[in-house]
Amino acid sequence: MNTQIKAQNLKGFRDFLPEDALLRKKIIAKITSVFEIFGYDPLETPALEYGETLMGKYGEDADKLLYLFEDRGGRKVGMRYDQTVPLARVVSQYTQLAKPFKRYQIQPVWRAENTQKGRYREFLQCDADIIGDSNKAVADAEVLSLLWNIYNALGFKNIKIAVNSRVILKKLIDGSLNTSTQTEEFLSVVRTIDKLDKIGQEGVRLELRTKGLEDSSIQYLFDRIDEWTRYDYKKVLEVFGELGYSMQMAIDNFGIPKNQIVFNPTLARGLDYYTGIIFEAISPDYKGSLGGGGRYDNLIGQFTGQNVSAVGFAVGFDRTLEAAKELKLIDASKTVTKVLVAYKDDGKKVFPTALRLVTQLRNAGINTELFLDPKKDLGKQLKYADNKGIPYVVIIGENEVANKRYKLKNLADRTEKELSENEIINSV
Amino acid sequence: MNTQIKAQNLKGFRDFLPEDALLRKKIIAKITSVFEIFGYDPLETPALEYGETLMGKYGEDADKLLYLFEDRGGRKVGMRYDQTVPLARVVSQYTQLAKPFKRYQIQPVWRAENTQKGRYREFLQCDADIIGDSNKAVADAEVLSLLWNIYNALGFKNIKIAVNSRVILKKLIDGSLNTSTQTEEFLSVVRTIDKLDKIGQEGVRLELRTKGLEDSSIQYLFDRIDEWTRYDYKKVLEVFGELGYSMQMAIDNFGIPKNQIVFNPTLARGLDYYTGIIFEAISPDYKGSLGGGGRYDNLIGQFTGQNVSAVGFAVGFDRTLEAAKELKLIDASKTVTKVLVAYKDDGKKVFPTALRLVTQLRNAGINTELFLDPKKDLGKQLKYADNKGIPYVVIIGENEVANKRYKLKNLADRTEKELSENEIINSV
Repeated sequence: MNTQIKAQNLKGFRDFLPEDALLRKKIIAKITSVFEIFGYDPLETPALEYGETLMGKYGEDADKLLYLFEDRGGRKVGMRYDQTVPLARVVSQYTQLAKPFKRYQIQPVWRAENTQKGRYREFLQCDADIIGDSNKAVADAEVLSLLWNIYNALGFKNIKIAVNSRVILKKLIDGSLNTSTQTEEFLSVVRTIDKLDKIGQEGVRLELRTKGLEDSSIQYLFDRIDEWTRYDYKKVLEVFGELGYSMQMAIDNFGIPKNQIVFNPTLARGLDYYTGIIFEAISPDYKGSLGGGGRYDNLIGQFTGQNVSAVGFAVGFDRTLEAAKELKLIDASKTVTKVLVAYKDDGKKVFPTALRLVTQLRNAGINTELFLDPKKDLGKQLKYADNKGIPYVVIIGENEVANKRYKLKNLADRTEKELSENEIINSV
Repeated sequence: MNTQIKAQNLKGFRDFLPEDALLRKKIIAKITSVFEIFGYDPLETPALEYGETLMGKYGEDADKLLYLFEDRGGRKVGMRYDQTVPLARVVSQYTQLAKPFKRYQIQPVWRAENTQKGRYREFLQCDADIIGDSNKAVADAEVLSLLWNIYNALGFKNIKIAVNSRVILKKLIDGSLNTSTQTEEFLSVVRTIDKLDKIGQEGVRLELRTKGLEDSSIQYLFDRIDEWTRYDYKKVLEVFGELGYSMQMAIDNFGIPKNQIVFNPTLARGLDYYTGIIFEAISPDYKGSLGGGGRYDNLIGQFTGQNVSAVGFAVGFDRTLEAAKELKLIDASKTVTKVLVAYKDDGKKVFPTALRLVTQLRNAGINTELFLDPKKDLGKQLKYADNKGIPYVVIIGENEVANKRYKLKNLADRTEKELSENEIINSV
């Protein structure tokens, strides 16, 4: 016997035992089906990328969270941090892809986050993006609609899609500082505004002061925010044009209820690469955003030298799952198995009969488990089925073999019937 | 504009563009359905494990292929190398899991292999295992049957399941050396026998000589192999007991055709941890094994100190996919999209009508894409659908809007019909 090793997970990394794994598969299937209804095709990219592909795309803070290392060939490599940068790489690399390219992607990403507050270091993202659209307003409206439809399909009746635009944020900040701000200065103020929900108006005021903004500038910001927050989509269209047009199209043409798509001039989104619309899905019953995205027209140019328009989002799978659980929108089953075949082995005819029945149930497409320990008594076999959450047990003993009728026990209501093979297949 | 970055993959890592990704999803769905029919539940484990969890489990050669690195917290971590060791860790860690625990797991694994000869560094494994069975012969027969059923469901009509046992190999090698061999010596000879397919009988003879085996020992090996290779399952049962019993059960009770389960006394399997039955799925039309596994009753004990019986296998997903393609067992579609809605925008009524039709098709559960560039002429829109492999195009212009009848073009047979909205929904 070798030295004993402690069985443990790394912090921030999770095992999904059957009940959790089944729930995840169920939600993934629903999200996938909405992606496909909208005509998005699947894409998969590797877990590892060249380090230089990932570095410098997300912003300084994010770079520190990348899992970077040297592989056995001395290459600097990094684990997938999101699915947008790999998508930008793919679009740059495979020029044969017809544009507009609409793809979805559902894979884990890795971030060396502080694991407090329920943050994970490995988590699933469900992305959808449109690359190379030539009519931004329509593309923006379609992704808004797609995001709304996902939450609608999952049963979130009160979901709100909050929208804003980096262009409007630029207008806000330029107005506040009375100049055309440079990228770094602009992003610095954006990052502070992004914290409004967390640190409140006073926190934002203090942080902006330490960043050198004058009180009059800060007051200008809050006054505009106060005023703009009251805008409905018609007013957004009148005052800001493009964003309002996408909102209107999402409502009038894509059928999003108008109270579920709201303008929020303080919505900022953390990542540096956004250039136009930005948006988030928010459930009033659940704190924080469930997913979000935006337009990033300059990212692909970092690979190709030529900018390609792009817009999309990621569903935050874990937060969405958590919210769906809390709102009781989904029920989990503990097992895929529908029938356990239990038997009292006589060493002769019972076991072959049990196996024949198992094979027939399986051939009929019924998820069936054969109890693998013929020496255990029937009580223990029933308890095993109960523990595992298997709804039906077929019981076979010598009498049953002789009469060719078997006990079918429904563990939910504890009823029991004597049935033939065919009757069993038809009734489960 | 930042410095331009080359868009490239790491060697041995692949992107799956829509056509490939769809094919993979299709095969994964088939394999999953067989796993579930057999009552196996899904499990997922993290991409990263503690280094010590992975090291020393697979054998010396394999340890060199692990992706090991130090994370930002200074922990030695490694990327998933297979799904068996993580399963052993899970079973040791969550003692509440009811036994027997039957799970399937479909996740990528990473090995820093030499990438020549079509080997990949990231590839998918589809595993199924039974942990804590108390009747080994039945459990062995069930996993053989499960593996056969997967290939049967995928359409491999001539699949063969080759079986052997580490116990029989021990008997063979002990007989050859006329002693009860120690583990290291035994595994060393096993690893050479494992190469029989690659280097032939002469190659094996030479390698065993350099390992110090006398010619008489080597001759004994070949004589026994020659004799045993002719054994059918009845003879295996008569001479070796247990393995033959599992073969018989797989044939008589689980319904595997008897010419598709064959005893192969030279089948060795590379990994160190096997203790009993070992087996591989082989397609006579395709070189090498498509998947395989075996019994590993001592692995879990390395975590818990207490051995737990275990048997299972991995479907080699890439090889299976490759073989299925070559044998034309599957057809790929290039896109999920069924209908493209194309339109000639007049800036007024056409676009809203197109969008309404898109939304209605989507609501009817039909995968529908809206063409996102209204300025492109219809010819370009049709070409886009053709390139992407979308089977139907609905064409909307001013006349169509006026008459409320739209052109439905079938791109496969190039036919065209004028239909109402409902007729379109019903006919695609």
